[in-house]
Amino acid sequence: MTETMNEILPSYVNGAWWTPDAAAAASGTEVRDASTGEVVARVSTDGLDLGAALEHARTVGQASLGRLTFHQRAVLLKQMALALTERKAELYALSSRTGATKQDSWVDIDGGIGVLFTYSGKGRREMPNSKVYVDGAVESLSKDGSFLGRHIYTRLPGVAVQINAFNFPVWGSLEKFAPAFLAGVPTLVKPATPTGYLAEAFVRMLVESGLLPEGSLQLVSGSVPDLFDHLRLGDLVAFTGSASTAERLRSHDSVQTGGVRFTSETDSINASVLGTDAIEGTPEFDAYVKQLVVEMTTKAGQKCTAIRRAIVPAASVDAVVDAVRTRIAERVVVGDPRAEGVTMGPLASTEQRDEVLRQVAKLQAAGGELVIGSTDVPSVMQSDGATGATFDGAFVAPMLLRFADAASPALHEVEAFGPVASIVGYGTLDEATALVARGGGSLVTSVATHDPEVAVALASGIAAYNGRVLFLDRDDARSSTGHGSPLPNLVHGGPGRAGGGEELGGIRAVLHHMQRTAVQGSPEMLTALTGVWHQGAASQPGGVHPFRKSLAELRLGDQVVSESRTVTLEDIETFAEFTGDTFYAHMDEEAAAANPFFPGRVAHGYLLVSWAAGLFVDAAPGPVLANYGLENLRFITPVSPGDSIRVELTAKQISPRETDEYGEVRWDAVLKNQDDELVATYDVLTLVAKELTPEPAA
Amino acid sequence: MTETMNEILPSYVNGAWWTPDAAAAASGTEVRDASTGEVVARVSTDGLDLGAALEHARTVGQASLGRLTFHQRAVLLKQMALALTERKAELYALSSRTGATKQDSWVDIDGGIGVLFTYSGKGRREMPNSKVYVDGAVESLSKDGSFLGRHIYTRLPGVAVQINAFNFPVWGSLEKFAPAFLAGVPTLVKPATPTGYLAEAFVRMLVESGLLPEGSLQLVSGSVPDLFDHLRLGDLVAFTGSASTAERLRSHDSVQTGGVRFTSETDSINASVLGTDAIEGTPEFDAYVKQLVVEMTTKAGQKCTAIRRAIVPAASVDAVVDAVRTRIAERVVVGDPRAEGVTMGPLASTEQRDEVLRQVAKLQAAGGELVIGSTDVPSVMQSDGATGATFDGAFVAPMLLRFADAASPALHEVEAFGPVASIVGYGTLDEATALVARGGGSLVTSVATHDPEVAVALASGIAAYNGRVLFLDRDDARSSTGHGSPLPNLVHGGPGRAGGGEELGGIRAVLHHMQRTAVQGSPEMLTALTGVWHQGAASQPGGVHPFRKSLAELRLGDQVVSESRTVTLEDIETFAEFTGDTFYAHMDEEAAAANPFFPGRVAHGYLLVSWAAGLFVDAAPGPVLANYGLENLRFITPVSPGDSIRVELTAKQISPRETDEYGEVRWDAVLKNQDDELVATYDVLTLVAKELTPEPAA
Repeated sequence: MTETMNEILPSYVNGAWWTPDAAAAASGTEVRDASTGEVVARVSTDGLDLGAALEHARTVGQASLGRLTFHQRAVLLKQMALALTERKAELYALSSRTGATKQDSWVDIDGGIGVLFTYSGKGRREMPNSKVYVDGAVESLSKDGSFLGRHIYTRLPGVAVQINAFNFPVWGSLEKFAPAFLAGVPTLVKPATPTGYLAEAFVRMLVESGLLPEGSLQLVSGSVPDLFDHLRLGDLVAFTGSASTAERLRSHDSVQTGGVRFTSETDSINASVLGTDAIEGTPEFDAYVKQLVVEMTTKAGQKCTAIRRAIVPAASVDAVVDAVRTRIAERVVVGDPRAEGVTMGPLASTEQRDEVLRQVAKLQAAGGELVIGSTDVPSVMQSDGATGATFDGAFVAPMLLRFADAASPALHEVEAFGPVASIVGYGTLDEATALVARGGGSLVTSVATHDPEVAVALASGIAAYNGRVLFLDRDDARSSTGHGSPLPNLVHGGPGRAGGGEELGGIRAVLHHMQRTAVQGSPEMLTALTGVWHQGAASQPGGVHPFRKSLAELRLGDQVVSESRTVTLEDIETFAEFTGDTFYAHMDEEAAAANPFFPGRVAHGYLLVSWAAGLFVDAAPGPVLANYGLENLRFITPVSPGDSIRVELTAKQISPRETDEYGEVRWDAVLKNQDDELVATYDVLTLVAKELTPEPAA
Repeated sequence: MTETMNEILPSYVNGAWWTPDAAAAASGTEVRDASTGEVVARVSTDGLDLGAALEHARTVGQASLGRLTFHQRAVLLKQMALALTERKAELYALSSRTGATKQDSWVDIDGGIGVLFTYSGKGRREMPNSKVYVDGAVESLSKDGSFLGRHIYTRLPGVAVQINAFNFPVWGSLEKFAPAFLAGVPTLVKPATPTGYLAEAFVRMLVESGLLPEGSLQLVSGSVPDLFDHLRLGDLVAFTGSASTAERLRSHDSVQTGGVRFTSETDSINASVLGTDAIEGTPEFDAYVKQLVVEMTTKAGQKCTAIRRAIVPAASVDAVVDAVRTRIAERVVVGDPRAEGVTMGPLASTEQRDEVLRQVAKLQAAGGELVIGSTDVPSVMQSDGATGATFDGAFVAPMLLRFADAASPALHEVEAFGPVASIVGYGTLDEATALVARGGGSLVTSVATHDPEVAVALASGIAAYNGRVLFLDRDDARSSTGHGSPLPNLVHGGPGRAGGGEELGGIRAVLHHMQRTAVQGSPEMLTALTGVWHQGAASQPGGVHPFRKSLAELRLGDQVVSESRTVTLEDIETFAEFTGDTFYAHMDEEAAAANPFFPGRVAHGYLLVSWAAGLFVDAAPGPVLANYGLENLRFITPVSPGDSIRVELTAKQISPRETDEYGEVRWDAVLKNQDDELVATYDVLTLVAKELTPEPAA
């Protein structure tokens, strides 16, 4: 592609590259360089069989991904990230043609690759190495324990259609692809036409890497007007773009009645609030201004998450405007991103430029006074370093509009998707809260305050109107990732105007590609369905001690049932002396008996779990490598001197690692006393070798 | 109400009972007794100011609920459950007029009260005693720990509009009300007209109990044609009813573009699969037949969750039909539920009866052969014990239709919402899976099998098409709660045809009434926002030992920083001998060194946490009552002989109980070695008194 950019941009469907015939190609949509107006590529889907591509995903793609576990998919994501990293110079070169500066491209390209790395890590740390994800605790549904309930997630049986915006062709695709892939759902990605050549480039790199399971990723370069007619229950659509397009797509029958999941992330009228405490001269004031300028100018303000409304104490409006003006003058150089020193590029296309100017005019007509910048064609730095105005490039200057009337609807509703923000004053925190809410739902609001009470007061009112809220102060101003940056481990999306969807947020986005189902059955059935041993299911006590079994040999339900051991008062005193834990419940009969929970002196909980380890352990070297932790310990019945305890330890979950010679084994531990009462329950976490190491020759 | 049933049914809005004027009342819709056709009540909303009622919820209701914590709301739910229990005889009397048998009424009335009890318990056990719910773990967003991310849920700022179906006027209302109330979102409930008098009765009981916070529950008796015009961002609608009504409501602008959350639970074409192993003579075959008859006849089959499709091995179709026929003949007595011995009542209205017969005709026309029952007016038992046909009562006989063609669309799409099911044969498990999926998304599918492999094979294909899947076998047949019973602790709802919504499922439904928001900030800010102390936030070491502080005195960040204690080889051996834990990593230098994780012999993890307790404890009697557990323990750096450890214990979360004189305190425990490396991290769980007990006089 990079050599023949003026050609037709191919699609990748049904396991092969596809281009329209010559006539269709010739009449395809032209895509132009944002700075120079040169034609970069042409796109057309004329003749493409979209239905066949979707069916390819549902059959071949589902099958190939279905053979892999969550961890195996996660490993592939890391390998893809590495493959893209190796070739990212090619992506950067193409990215500059979209109007992106190096910094903008870093957000898009390295940011996108970073999503793959994050999902690879989270997939292996936070999901099991299997194909079913268990949600929440066991629900006991019968008194005798023979009927249980549990929630599982299984992948959707269809295709994830991902419709992306033009502003982040790499990140925007990969942030949707990674969770779909991890869930096991094949992707069909449809990039926005103006920057689709960059998406095509990374898809090509992934195809060429040989890492993609068959049918797991397809690309359609160009428009797909009849897409929704081909969708059905089990498919899902993740859309990023304008609210009006989202509205039109969502209204399709396949979504309204056909059961197709639709999630959207639309540009919203995000706000940034300066706290009442953050007056001029405070670090919070400075951080606020700095962030506002960054958000106005990064990616030339073409970010769904950019600050559109600066909501500041009425008394601070002048000071903020002055500080922003100064900072823009000192820091912002508009021009062709290929020129040295340029910090803000053009918009993605001249159509976008014209659209932004139309919206600015609306804001002005509604009372917005342009206090910084101008709607004139700006003088910019050309790629050769010369300065001058250009009509072929999609340049606009950074602009700030000041509203005297905080109630002006346009202030809260009109979006100029460029380097444009509005500023307005507020009186009380309640007023600031109401102004944020008037945006009708936002992706993000940031708050600059060092006062926790201000933070709590604002959060209680604005959180429900936002997908993300960032609190900026002297403690995090330097380390903050910024108002406008969605992160793979935090949810991205917001209510109302922001689209009502939710992406990213780590494993949360994986689960959005799966169906949560309550399953009910006997412990035996739930064990089979979840891969997690449940109390009451068959167990195998006796025989070879499970600590002598490698992962290859160990089975769910393998069990140690220990001997009993009687606790004496002397044991309790010995343990107290050894550990220093002389808490009165163990040492003082009268005080212990006065405690509402104890009959008198009782054994330390830590004594009990320490003894339990002594009771269940098989001490000799073997496949069990380490006890790396313990979870969900609850002490239920106190143990008095004279009581005896025994332990049942049962293999509960077995998770071999893909990239190590060992894996995790979770053991169910139950301590009971001589009357069969539950003393304690917990999970023991161990690392166990995949294979037995042969004994070294003597 | 019970004395004057032929009157207009009031609504409860704006904190008062409301009825239309006499003219409107006289022309209101008539509601009739299902068995006798007598007029029970009239309903009309003519003149009701719905907008004002919604605004009352958003202002007064939000404010009154907003003053309460999750636990305080949970306590109220239990008190409401008790208040309804006291008066449930009145509800049972009314319920029989809807056609419900005692057993049907038990499902509705005691089932509904049970939802309140369950949510009260879960709210206190699984939610914090505060107003913000924290979701998932801390996300570290900067290397220096100064910038963190976390997810919180805050309640939606509007009103929960609950539109219910006629079949379960009590349960259907309470299963939506309980989670909304617990979330802190006021409810406006709109019952279905045919049985709305029963919903009015329980709302009246709750109003008279004095337990309802102002504006937290309103009732509209009658139709609300312009309801959606009054809704806006922050409101949500939970609808139960027909798919076609759901479609119409969902298409309203307030949902499509206004940000109103809409969730629906619609009747679906649920399936019950007989496993290939469950041949005649097995316990699974018997359990399958028994369950099928129960589902056909309970509530006269008027359940969204009822079995509509019996999918059985082709060779077993005859046997199942015969067994069902026999069981119906032996067990089912159709009649007025007030008559002794009646096990199946009428449908809710003659309109419903006529509708069911129309759908049966459609099934017949599509190839369904009526093999059990008839569409003739059945001879039924009257309330006086006499038997005969009645045209005023809404009676139909239980009917089973047999389909020879499994591909018949009607089989999978047409619902007769009465005591009607279809049976069809399958060949392979893949075919059975495909047949289940053809329902287009169901609330529930049940599977009778004793073979875990059959269960896993079916689950992997059908789970994604169902909100719930029940596995029935000899082990749980007696304890199973049944195919048709949604449970408060399991999700209820399903994809596609089932409405695409999700209700119940314990706290999951509470969270559906809240907005998930990612919050980013310094540890100090996250501590303030979540009520959970975060590593890096201010702490108060020194001063009074926190174990000497009651809940009234303890503050987040109160901390013990211990002395150091050096571990010797002798300590390790003493501990090994005392506990019996002679695992080689502690006892055998050579074998330990050969282990990939240890430099040589290391201290037991349990030794470390036991010592830590000795280091942080304040032993004398005081407000700390018990250590009831421990969570998330991870061992990070091994401790060798000669190393020393110390512990920091910090108050992390403080949760006073509403109904006890103590509460939970969660402590953040961090063990470090002499080089400041992390040795272990975990949470210690304690019970602490709310107030200091004065020392008894000597």
